[in-house]
This record gives sequence, C-alpha cells and structure tokens, in this order.
Amino acid sequence: MPDPRAEKAFDPQIADAFLQANEKLGGLPKYLGVRFIEYQPGLLRAELAVRDELLTMIGNLHGGVLAALCDHLLGCVCYPHMKRGQWAATTEFKLNLLAPVSGGTLEAEAEIVSLSRSLAVVCIEIRNGERRACIAQGTVMIMDPKKRA
Amino acid sequence: MPDPRAEKAFDPQIADAFLQANEKLGGLPKYLGVRFIEYQPGLLRAELAVRDELLTMIGNLHGGVLAALCDHLLGCVCYPHMKRGQWAATTEFKLNLLAPVSGGTLEAEAEIVSLSRSLAVVCIEIRNGERRACIAQGTVMIMDPKKRA
Amino acid sequence: MPDPRAEKAFDPQIADAFLQANEKLGGLPKYLGVRFIEYQPGLLRAELAVRDELLTMIGNLHGGVLAALCDHLLGCVCYPHMKRGQWAATTEFKLNLLAPVSGGTLEAEAEIVSLSRSLAVVCIEIRNGERRACIAQGTVMIMDPKKRA
Amino acid sequence: MPDPRAEKAFDPQIADAFLQANEKLGGLPKYLGVRFIEYQPGLLRAELAVRDELLTMIGNLHGGVLAALCDHLLGCVCYPHMKRGQWAATTEFKLNLLAPVSGGTLEAEAEIVSLSRSLAVVCIEIRNGERRACIAQGTVMIMDPKKRA
Repeated sequence: MPDPRAEKAFDPQIADAFLQANEKLGGLPKYLGVRFIEYQPGLLRAELAVRDELLTMIGNLHGGVLAALCDHLLGCVCYPHMKRGQWAATTEFKLNLLAPVSGGTLEAEAEIVSLSRSLAVVCIEIRNGERRACIAQGTVMIMDPKKRA
Repeated sequence: MPDPRAEKAFDPQIADAFLQANEKLGGLPKYLGVRFIEYQPGLLRAELAVRDELLTMIGNLHGGVLAALCDHLLGCVCYPHMKRGQWAATTEFKLNLLAPVSGGTLEAEAEIVSLSRSLAVVCIEIRNGERRACIAQGTVMIMDPKKRA
Repeated sequence: MPDPRAEKAFDPQIADAFLQANEKLGGLPKYLGVRFIEYQPGLLRAELAVRDELLTMIGNLHGGVLAALCDHLLGCVCYPHMKRGQWAATTEFKLNLLAPVSGGTLEAEAEIVSLSRSLAVVCIEIRNGERRACIAQGTVMIMDPKKRA
Repeated sequence: MPDPRAEKAFDPQIADAFLQANEKLGGLPKYLGVRFIEYQPGLLRAELAVRDELLTMIGNLHGGVLAALCDHLLGCVCYPHMKRGQWAATTEFKLNLLAPVSGGTLEAEAEIVSLSRSLAVVCIEIRNGERRACIAQGTVMIMDPKKRA
C-alpha cells in the first residue's frame, strides 16, 4: 500500500505527460525499451520487452538491465507527487535478483512507501511471467530547482 | 585489500581474455562503453566515457548507467578466480550515488572482499575526476556448469 | 504474497515450537523483547514493546533495535520451511528507517518472497501504530548440518 | 580514504566527549558492550568483546549484534563533523555478513566517504581477528535542532 501522503500530492497531468513520453524517449531508457503503462497515486507500472541484444553470452538477461530499470523507476514514480521545477535524485538503492530471465516481458511496479517533502522511499517488484525476477528498495531526494546537496 | 583467497585462485589467462574482449563487446556493456583496464588478483579496474546520450534531460548522467556498470563489474571481477565452465550470478547489490556526474570519465575499481568456493562479496568505487560518484557492495554466486539454484 | 514454494514446504510443528519459545528466549532477542505472534506459510508476525531503555538520549528508538529485529526475523521466518538439522545464515540485508519511533509497539511482518533449496529472500515491514517505521530486504542461506561456506 | 570535507569539519572536543562516554553508556550500546577506541577526521574505531550471551544456540554471534553495531557507528562517526545541536539520523544501511563469529573481539572501523551539509555516506568494516566479519554502507541525515523530515 503506498504512503497515503502520495495520494494527496498526486498530479495526474504530470503522470499523463510521462505516459505520453513513451514514444519520445532518448538515451538509456530508449535503449532498454522501457514503457510506462500506468500511474496511480504512489504507483507506477512499466514494461520492458526482453530482446536478444539485452542477454549475456550465457543467454540470461544482463542484470544491469534490471538495475538500470530500477534506477529509472525510482525517480519517475516520484514526479507526479512533486512540485513543478523540482527534480528527483536517486541517492541509493538495493536490489535482489531472484530468478534468471531469458525472454518474454518484464512487468515492473514501483510503489512509494514513504513520502515527505524532501524524501521518498520506493519499493519495486519486477515480474517475468509467473515469476518474481527482482525486488528493490531505495531512496529518492526531492530537490528544489536550484539547490543541490 | 582484497581477500587473500583471491590471490591464490587468480588465473591471468582468463583475465587477459577479458581485457582483450573490450573490442568485441555486445549488448548493454557495448552500449554503455565499458572498457576493462586492468585485472589483478581480487581487483578489476574499468573506465566508461560519459557521452551526451547517457545524460538525462537535466544534464546529469543517468543513474542507471552507474547501476548497470556496478552489476557488470560484480560478475566480471570474479571470472579469473573461478574454474572454467563456472559462471557468476549476481544475486544482490546496493549502491549509493554520491555526486552528480555530467561529463568526463568514470573510473571504477571492483574488489573481492570475501571469496569462498561458491560465493564472492565485492565492493566497488566509481570516481569521476576528483570526486567519488558511487560506491556499491554486492554478492555473486559462483555457479557450477549445470547447477542453477 | 509469499513465494508459493514456501507453502509446500511449511512444517507447522516447527512453527509452533518457535511460538512456544517466546518465554524461553535468551541473549539479544530477550534483551530486545521480541515476541513471535503468528507463523503462516512464508510469513512470520512479531511484536516488540518499545521501552525507555531502548531509546537514545534524543528520545527516539535506537535504530540498532530495528536492525537487530530485522536480522532476527530474517532467519526465524525460514526455519519452518527448512529440513530439520539445517540452519539459517543471514548473509546480507538492507533496511530503510522511515519514521522516528518513540514509544508504543513495533509490529513486524517478515515474508519469504523467494525460496529455493539453499536460499531465501525475505522482505520485512515494521509498523509503529499507523506508521511504517522500517522496511528491509535480505538474503538467508539455508545451510546443511555440517557444511559451512 | 575519508571525504576531505570531513577533515575540515572535525571537532576534536566532541570526539573526546564521545570517547569519554564509554563508561556512561546506557541502553542497547551498553548491552552490546560497544567501546569507542579512536576518532580521526572522518573515522571512528570501536571494539566489542564477544561474550557468550551474544551467541545464538548454534554458537555463532547473533547477526543482530553486528547490525546494531553498524547502526550505532553510522551515527556516531558523524557527530564530531556536525554543528552543536544537530543530530544524526540513520536513514538506511546495508550490510554483508562475511564469516561466522564465535568469540574474541570485533574491531570496527567506520569511515565517512561522502559528507555534505545535510548528508553523510559511511562505510564500515568489522574484523574478528584475521577475518573480515562484516561490511556495511549507509546514509545518515544531519538534522537541524528543530527540523524533522
């Protein structure tokens, strides 16, 4: 269950803007093929199609794909709960890789479990078909436009 | 200081093979531009040139680049200390992002702090010029050819 | 939702033995005052009464109480899912402290999110009244009677 | 190597006060028997004698002792680098347990690897004789007297 404070601070317009940006992604998120599916207060659901280029020589999905996906979701789940102009800086996270992935789709859900004015703690679960592939938890600092720690 | 057990188990031929593979990388490591610089018993040094495509819209290096780099080094530092045919499965790691990165080069060092027959614990430090950009610690399981947990 | 494999491997007799041991605790768990409330397949619920001796000079619960409680639950949630004679070795965990605690009761729930023959990954949530106080995730190795890594 | 900013901000009087408080400890640190040995800029060295009461039934040191010790050092290494009246709130940490401990002394060293006005990131290594027993890394928020996040 997301932090109830996330419900009060949810801006659906920003969520929509992020959903519509799926087609315009650049950089690492484009290379990975991250697709945002749905925002709700305190929640973000996303998908990633496992293509051959993302596998290692052993035939398993490179763990770095899951790690980079976690980092991406940590920040992005926060934006609709922040004031305009603020930005999200992931300061730390930890992940456990639970099962090898060799194909199909990753279905990820990021949930804000604690939200204050300057800090969010987020849990992530990534599934691959029937199986949990990864869980993560991490901290995001909500930064004001000019202040950097 | 690496685990002394890593010194006894170091195979320089495998280390050389990994160093020479810099030109033949594929997939995520190629996209990121990871370059292995040096192996020593229990140690791996690598570099990554920060190019514009890896920045976010705010102009900072995407945290997912650092996360994926950590995952990659966690496994690769172990191979010269494993028997041929074995493979390295990262099971978990945690990272702290210490300073925003906006250009230059990442210089990473991965160190095996504990090594047993089936498990390695690895610490990573990534610098960007004068500054620490990231520290990480994680666990790698050393898997026999057919056995998967 | 716990790993379905935890359901198949649940031994209610061992769970009962752990519940009945509340009165006979020694060492650190006794000092902390950990009380097991309920086992279910893949789940353990426990409580801890926050007494003044566990507070710091600032009047908040010492974070070490939450950290030690997490470590204790990580191992204990696994025992009813293990063979007799095996033992649980916590190899790593990570926790986020979400809100200061100054009194009342801690209500903790540990859940096995992934279980194989030799490894369990466990998530923990600790509440203090209405508020989440701590979340954690970690890895437990299931060790055979004589084999130590 | 500690963050150079820790050197500029080191107050030896506060360090001395913490060292002299070894005899007056209360609560969990007293129960554990933590002893501070030495402060330097960005560093704190501490010891803990492993007594039988801290062992589990299997004869190994309870992992919760190491976890609680880490939490304690995370905050305490910061105080000589903070302004008077500020307090240190550990927000998260992660530890790896590297070897079972059954007796002797724990020798711990905590190092501030990154320090800003409001945040410290700290690495900890705990040795037991010749062996590394635990490594940890975590984040401490430096809180002003009245402001709580």
